[in-house]
Amino acid sequence: MGRVGDKLAELGLELPAPMTAPPGVVLPFELVQLSGDHAYVSGHGPWNGSEILVRGKVGAVVSLEEGYEAARLTALSMLASLQQVLGELDRVTRWVKALGLVNCAPGFNNTPGVINGFTDLITELWGDAGRHARSAIGAAELPFDMSVEVEAIVEVS
Amino acid sequence: MGRVGDKLAELGLELPAPMTAPPGVVLPFELVQLSGDHAYVSGHGPWNGSEILVRGKVGAVVSLEEGYEAARLTALSMLASLQQVLGELDRVTRWVKALGLVNCAPGFNNTPGVINGFTDLITELWGDAGRHARSAIGAAELPFDMSVEVEAIVEVS
Amino acid sequence: MGRVGDKLAELGLELPAPMTAPPGVVLPFELVQLSGDHAYVSGHGPWNGSEILVRGKVGAVVSLEEGYEAARLTALSMLASLQQVLGELDRVTRWVKALGLVNCAPGFNNTPGVINGFTDLITELWGDAGRHARSAIGAAELPFDMSVEVEAIVEVS
Repeated sequence: MGRVGDKLAELGLELPAPMTAPPGVVLPFELVQLSGDHAYVSGHGPWNGSEILVRGKVGAVVSLEEGYEAARLTALSMLASLQQVLGELDRVTRWVKALGLVNCAPGFNNTPGVINGFTDLITELWGDAGRHARSAIGAAELPFDMSVEVEAIVEVS
Repeated sequence: MGRVGDKLAELGLELPAPMTAPPGVVLPFELVQLSGDHAYVSGHGPWNGSEILVRGKVGAVVSLEEGYEAARLTALSMLASLQQVLGELDRVTRWVKALGLVNCAPGFNNTPGVINGFTDLITELWGDAGRHARSAIGAAELPFDMSVEVEAIVEVS
Repeated sequence: MGRVGDKLAELGLELPAPMTAPPGVVLPFELVQLSGDHAYVSGHGPWNGSEILVRGKVGAVVSLEEGYEAARLTALSMLASLQQVLGELDRVTRWVKALGLVNCAPGFNNTPGVINGFTDLITELWGDAGRHARSAIGAAELPFDMSVEVEAIVEVS
């Protein structure tokens, strides 16, 4: 399974099904697009296949802790897409950049505390090669009211 | 006119004038910035020259269908800038990544359905080379109340 | 001090301390991540060390002029991080792309007028090599209620 796969197993984590469009929805883009030595990863959320696992605004119906967990689930959804496209997660040799978006209730601005759920898991799995530049921003709305979205750029071998 | 220009003509589409600042506004940045094999395209909207064609929040004064059309007009504005800077649209050999932003009324979260207007046109024009990674996010506000904004990264020859 | 350092001195500007986490906050990411010929710069704001210099929504408690100044302070914070990581600002040979976010009060949409504070300073310091592609977007919330955030991609030697 490779080094990252082993680490996932060690942590007792399983990848969800790769993100697919819910019934009646068309998502006519690539989950991951390769360009040179980089893979550009589309915005992912806390999805399992076509099911959205965490919805609603953080700071209102979703707590900080639940938002952190939603960001962690977002990382797992992204890994499922990367594994599907690359065949092997170890082909991701470095995480470069992430843009994290939080579906914020008015006045909730601890967006870094939410997106840390993504960053912590990636760093746990890849170590120093997982450390990345990042922004964590409050969005007015996210697709289908999901609570968190993250897009990323990684180096691939 | 090149392959993409022919396809535009086939579809009966004409490019608008490249985006320019409205009176009294300073936009001191590049519409397109080249770096290595990539062109980074600034955020564009449904503009014709300095005129904004679609304003207002999607889900309130702008419907989903009108938002989709605004995203399509945004693609055309971007193509006008690329043609101006590159001389020839066929120099865009691959679309890599788009970040789409929708000026959302509270509670409107079908942002993918809006940004599909951009993605569908690019894919129609470039075929498989037009398929790109993407995010579609709800912004609290967009410049001068335009309804849609998209920025992109493309490969150029 | 190098050419950019000389120019900063000429303008009477000093860099703030590089951004660090306020007490009780964990920011587990890189301020700047190198990848190939590029540096990806994390979202920065008007910070001096762990202190946020300008907070609140532009168009409400923060005026357009104060927002412009906050964007200028954001540029200085970013330069402090680049200097810390690269050792020398002259190693930034070209600015490629910036994504600017404004913490907008409802109805405030002159986001370009705010982010110009960033772009104007970078262009003042680097000249033509400072000109970059850009987007300027209204965020619903920004970390810890700071008024402006900018992330960037630059070429490094």
